[in-house]
Amino acid sequence: MRLARWISDGQVHQGMVHHECVEFRGKLLPIADLNLLPPIPPRQILGIALNFKDHAEELGLAEPPVPALFAKPLGSAIGAGHDIWYPRGATHCHYETEVAAIVGRTCSRVTPEEALSYLKGYTIANDFTCRDFITNMFRPPLKAKGFDTFCPLGPYLVTPDEIADPGQLTIRTWVNQELRQEGTTGDLMLSIAELIAYLSTFTTLEENDVILTGTPKGISPVVVGDVISCEVVGLGRLTNTVRMTEA
Amino acid sequence: MRLARWISDGQVHQGMVHHECVEFRGKLLPIADLNLLPPIPPRQILGIALNFKDHAEELGLAEPPVPALFAKPLGSAIGAGHDIWYPRGATHCHYETEVAAIVGRTCSRVTPEEALSYLKGYTIANDFTCRDFITNMFRPPLKAKGFDTFCPLGPYLVTPDEIADPGQLTIRTWVNQELRQEGTTGDLMLSIAELIAYLSTFTTLEENDVILTGTPKGISPVVVGDVISCEVVGLGRLTNTVRMTEA
Repeated sequence: MRLARWISDGQVHQGMVHHECVEFRGKLLPIADLNLLPPIPPRQILGIALNFKDHAEELGLAEPPVPALFAKPLGSAIGAGHDIWYPRGATHCHYETEVAAIVGRTCSRVTPEEALSYLKGYTIANDFTCRDFITNMFRPPLKAKGFDTFCPLGPYLVTPDEIADPGQLTIRTWVNQELRQEGTTGDLMLSIAELIAYLSTFTTLEENDVILTGTPKGISPVVVGDVISCEVVGLGRLTNTVRMTEA
Repeated sequence: MRLARWISDGQVHQGMVHHECVEFRGKLLPIADLNLLPPIPPRQILGIALNFKDHAEELGLAEPPVPALFAKPLGSAIGAGHDIWYPRGATHCHYETEVAAIVGRTCSRVTPEEALSYLKGYTIANDFTCRDFITNMFRPPLKAKGFDTFCPLGPYLVTPDEIADPGQLTIRTWVNQELRQEGTTGDLMLSIAELIAYLSTFTTLEENDVILTGTPKGISPVVVGDVISCEVVGLGRLTNTVRMTEA
């Protein structure tokens, strides 16, 4: 099942997606025409940096000695189709296309073997990052990954029954339709199940927690006007345009 | 006005505090007898490390070049009177008594002059930290400050009209009734108003966001069995006991 969430008539709606349309009040609406929200209301957004060996290598970094965790403020979450605001005065911002695992129920001290059963599904995240504010890659500071609009999520939630193997998902990023990034969750150092199990050793996860699982090699700077399309095969495409932040 | 929040009969209640009691169903209940929650349901918990010069000095560190921000996962929030779970195998955990500013309404790109008008009040936080998981003080990793129970908040919310000057609040920490830490928000490098203004330059704050404003000199390790009492004059005392995490 695929579920989208959107706003119309001042209300939040949720509907099943079939062939890029949702049925709503007897009509089929193309989801591209909707004012999409993140497919779930994020409770908190936790992520892991440098979880692909090839991505760490392209940054000239060794594998982190322990998982390099971070959080993104809730103000960063936006839906598909909305603009990413480029910080005024910044010089180097980039996309990071990732699988986002969405927690479905209270999850504490679980094993990797049972971790995936705690998920309500998966969506795509663009862990947008402004390099200007990073001085130590092993601990991305709150600000570099935390600007408003820096966490597009969507376009919809895909329930686990549709994902045969979350360890074999192809990730691609297109900037203005040019392929810039390609990888697979098969190359994650900490698998999605292992990451959730690790987080659950110290913090209790709850419904609608969003877990960003890492981006593969292929990040590159974007500029104002660029259209970023984050693809995970089986989860659709999350597309957002970069705009200059208002003065 | 002082507002406490607690659970009884399986319901969440909120009541005004007078002389350490709340009136509830015609009775005066000592708040010490209540199953207290954090005085607001935290939406997210953001903090700043090394915001006191004397605290940075006691750690042998220079002032951070930019504000050292961090987030604590929501699972860390507990109310007054509940136990802090000491992580099994850890060797060095310490309290950090702080003023917590509670956001009252949407707050984006505000000036320091107007920042405090966005608050619904103040409470006390114990930004409990496990040093075992810190390798770089300028960016406390999520885990070191993020274990379940590592963010006691309370005992109640104090509205801004009761706080003549949030820049002149005395902070003290007592461990087993021994005074271990003493300072004043007058020594904050980034004042509470400046911190909120700084955060609001990049992230939109919303109601019930909890902003931890920094701890003064005087942190010291605690062990299982210690009773930690965090005092901010005018905000009461937040007391929690350290227990060993269950196996």
